[in-house]
Amino acid sequence: MASVRLDEIVARFGGELIGDGSRLIVQVATLERAGPENISFLAHPKYLGRLKSTLAGAVILSRQAASNCPVDRIVCDQPYAYFARVAQWLNPVSHETSGHHPAATIASELPASASIAAGAFVGKGCLIGEAVEIGPGCAIGEGVSIGAGSRLHANVSVYAGCVIGRRAIIHSGAVIGADGFGFAREQDGSWLKIPQIGRVVIGDDVEIGANTTIDRGALDDTVIEDGVKLDNQIQVGHNVRIGAHSALAGCVGIAGSASIGRRCTVGGGAVILGHIALADDVNISAATLVAKSITQAGTYTAAIPFLDHAGWLKNFSHLRHLDSLADKIRALEAQVARLSELEQKS
Amino acid sequence: MASVRLDEIVARFGGELIGDGSRLIVQVATLERAGPENISFLAHPKYLGRLKSTLAGAVILSRQAASNCPVDRIVCDQPYAYFARVAQWLNPVSHETSGHHPAATIASELPASASIAAGAFVGKGCLIGEAVEIGPGCAIGEGVSIGAGSRLHANVSVYAGCVIGRRAIIHSGAVIGADGFGFAREQDGSWLKIPQIGRVVIGDDVEIGANTTIDRGALDDTVIEDGVKLDNQIQVGHNVRIGAHSALAGCVGIAGSASIGRRCTVGGGAVILGHIALADDVNISAATLVAKSITQAGTYTAAIPFLDHAGWLKNFSHLRHLDSLADKIRALEAQVARLSELEQKS
Amino acid sequence: MASVRLDEIVARFGGELIGDGSRLIVQVATLERAGPENISFLAHPKYLGRLKSTLAGAVILSRQAASNCPVDRIVCDQPYAYFARVAQWLNPVSHETSGHHPAATIASELPASASIAAGAFVGKGCLIGEAVEIGPGCAIGEGVSIGAGSRLHANVSVYAGCVIGRRAIIHSGAVIGADGFGFAREQDGSWLKIPQIGRVVIGDDVEIGANTTIDRGALDDTVIEDGVKLDNQIQVGHNVRIGAHSALAGCVGIAGSASIGRRCTVGGGAVILGHIALADDVNISAATLVAKSITQAGTYTAAIPFLDHAGWLKNFSHLRHLDSLADKIRALEAQVARLSELEQKS
Repeated sequence: MASVRLDEIVARFGGELIGDGSRLIVQVATLERAGPENISFLAHPKYLGRLKSTLAGAVILSRQAASNCPVDRIVCDQPYAYFARVAQWLNPVSHETSGHHPAATIASELPASASIAAGAFVGKGCLIGEAVEIGPGCAIGEGVSIGAGSRLHANVSVYAGCVIGRRAIIHSGAVIGADGFGFAREQDGSWLKIPQIGRVVIGDDVEIGANTTIDRGALDDTVIEDGVKLDNQIQVGHNVRIGAHSALAGCVGIAGSASIGRRCTVGGGAVILGHIALADDVNISAATLVAKSITQAGTYTAAIPFLDHAGWLKNFSHLRHLDSLADKIRALEAQVARLSELEQKS
Repeated sequence: MASVRLDEIVARFGGELIGDGSRLIVQVATLERAGPENISFLAHPKYLGRLKSTLAGAVILSRQAASNCPVDRIVCDQPYAYFARVAQWLNPVSHETSGHHPAATIASELPASASIAAGAFVGKGCLIGEAVEIGPGCAIGEGVSIGAGSRLHANVSVYAGCVIGRRAIIHSGAVIGADGFGFAREQDGSWLKIPQIGRVVIGDDVEIGANTTIDRGALDDTVIEDGVKLDNQIQVGHNVRIGAHSALAGCVGIAGSASIGRRCTVGGGAVILGHIALADDVNISAATLVAKSITQAGTYTAAIPFLDHAGWLKNFSHLRHLDSLADKIRALEAQVARLSELEQKS
Repeated sequence: MASVRLDEIVARFGGELIGDGSRLIVQVATLERAGPENISFLAHPKYLGRLKSTLAGAVILSRQAASNCPVDRIVCDQPYAYFARVAQWLNPVSHETSGHHPAATIASELPASASIAAGAFVGKGCLIGEAVEIGPGCAIGEGVSIGAGSRLHANVSVYAGCVIGRRAIIHSGAVIGADGFGFAREQDGSWLKIPQIGRVVIGDDVEIGANTTIDRGALDDTVIEDGVKLDNQIQVGHNVRIGAHSALAGCVGIAGSASIGRRCTVGGGAVILGHIALADDVNISAATLVAKSITQAGTYTAAIPFLDHAGWLKNFSHLRHLDSLADKIRALEAQVARLSELEQKS
């Protein structure tokens, strides 16, 4: 691994260097694990203790924290974003160079710069951009479009007709464009399938986590806008729209036709019901159920605090009787008001 | 895309046509997006507003709503089911015609009408029905049986010995027949695996969503009855039984040996614990935990309403102290009763 | 299938045989389904009723339960673990014998005893142990290490550089080593990717369920210790550590940098937030959110009891007003105290 000088980092990304510009940095590391050839960062004051004992060669931090740093440092406004840039520079993405592997099955014209791994399948009529990388075992249906510079890791499935923008990163096991869950119920209780004729349309710079599923639209499209980041095992129902630069943590479920604004964040395991709309800049806490629309930016929560099991048994059983508790309080209020009145009279 | 006349639709599916029978319909669409060559539907009175402004060529609706329709219409009893039939007719399923692809690995006798895509694997001793389609990258274990007309999309895994009925639709990434989670604990806390020797047995007309997993039985089988519809990312534990025509939304988890009745519905993200039994015609709301059996048809819910974060902090912390609130109410009731008594005496 | 004598079982695994040692046993079965050629077990007194009517050839049970058994029996201290051993003996794992299949793509040196199925991909520089089995459609990235005797079922994806110990069982669709969800936010709300340069390091005797995902570390590694058992559809975030012999049920989500002790159990659908630490021997109940660290062994719960929908509407709406209920109780207490005081004075 090559090394860079601290003054090269500052020349490239800005900030103020306090220390030895000739120091060589090989890799990024956490404050606890860093050695003299590592650069680390401090993004939150709660880790000040770790800063004081770090053995890092250098640390990226804010002006407020700079005086607490025992080693060379780069002072900047957004330490974590700065760190991300340095980490990207020190860790360039390794590109696949398999070309069009003979053990791939390819039924479309592809640019020579695209890399299609062994065991991948590309159907007819696909539009594959320059430098697209398709991993082993991926299955790309008929007429799919994938923008330049996108990378699909192993075993991704993309159904016919879907559109993926530029510079996408799609992790293994993701499924793009399976049928939405649409059925009409017959009077005997059985179900008639509604053909799902919409597509999934994904913007530029989207990352999609492992085993995440995004269903195609029923009639119109399911839309993921530019810069959206989806973690692993997220389920996105048909006709959902996710606004630009929203980020959703693992195991989130979004039911059909929900609409999520721009720059929203959704915590792990949250569930958003169908036809719900979230405004821009809404933050949903982990494990929260969103059962009605939210029109104001802000943070919304329904997380349940846990207890030791005996405490839970004693306390949570009352949940079934809250209305009766409220009734008792109302009755007490009436009685006490009457007693107070009598008292005042006497 | 071919077009059909409105009077052809009514001749095929019934209902009463009010309007121009010679009108040509090309495709289905939503009320908002439909143009003159589209047919749409109204299934719920809350969309009456959209009906009034639709530009659709025709709309399928109920007798009650018919007079509000500004365009040609088909009046029928079950507009959504009628719409499903029309949509299916206008969007016939496109069938794979890859035959037995040379890049598939096939160790069983197959009917000529079966289509096995590139990169698929079919083990020894499988029974594959007529016109079965197996997508790219599917892995079908030894001795699996798949009924006629079933379709497995790309990258489905079916373990040895499982049975899938006729006309199944199984979406990408689904895993049928992995080992159930069965271990005996040793006294030192380590785990001994219980061999999972049951199968998964799936009836006819079942649809299974992307990345859904159905575990094989421990000793007996896991059973999915006819007409069951499973959305994406559902987990079905070993020895579960799901009754005919039940429909489960995305991200539902069903623990081992649970039994779900016929025609049940389960909302997204619900969790059903092990050995629970649900009667027929039970509806479980989204994100609800079912920790005891339900013997009566009906709708059951444990969804938690969310609050803005400050409101949540203020209110939900009391959950840890409900028992003490109840105690205080009881004490107040005793005191107030005593005071009232004294008051009456004085 | 071969048969064994009851006295052979006892000679091999210990325990006391009460009955006919020459009885032939072919397979394990449940108490309800067992016939004379089956051996069953009783591990919990609640199934005593089933014991009394069983037609099993023999039953494995504890001394306390032995006198209730109408058939031949093996008496031992840990009936379920004993049963597991017998079941394993009667059901030896069938090993793949595909060798290095010509339809696999293999870029590393492999031992002759390893079995690589059709459609599998093994990248450069991998270290594959003796008797490792890699199923159809698996994708093993560059430089991966897999210990002797491990089995990867079909369509497993392992990213570059990850380490899997000996005797692992990894089920279909599992994804090991995808990028963790790490982004720095820019001031305009867009996201900068933090390269994820850690690995996933998995100990010996680990089982990983279907479609479970384990992310690689951001800077340090994600670590799964020896003997851990993960059910299906579990999400393990970057830099998580799971202690030896912990067992997690299906659909659990663990956010980044959480640390789970040894011999813990986590129920289905539970969510553990980032940077949380659980002590050894902690049991988390199903569907429980763990939002703060737990330092004491024990069982912890936040499960919400369900109600019929009308009862839910009536009771759960009060959750938004618990603080106001508590205020009312406080006000009542003050008023009643004042009234009592006045009463005493008069």
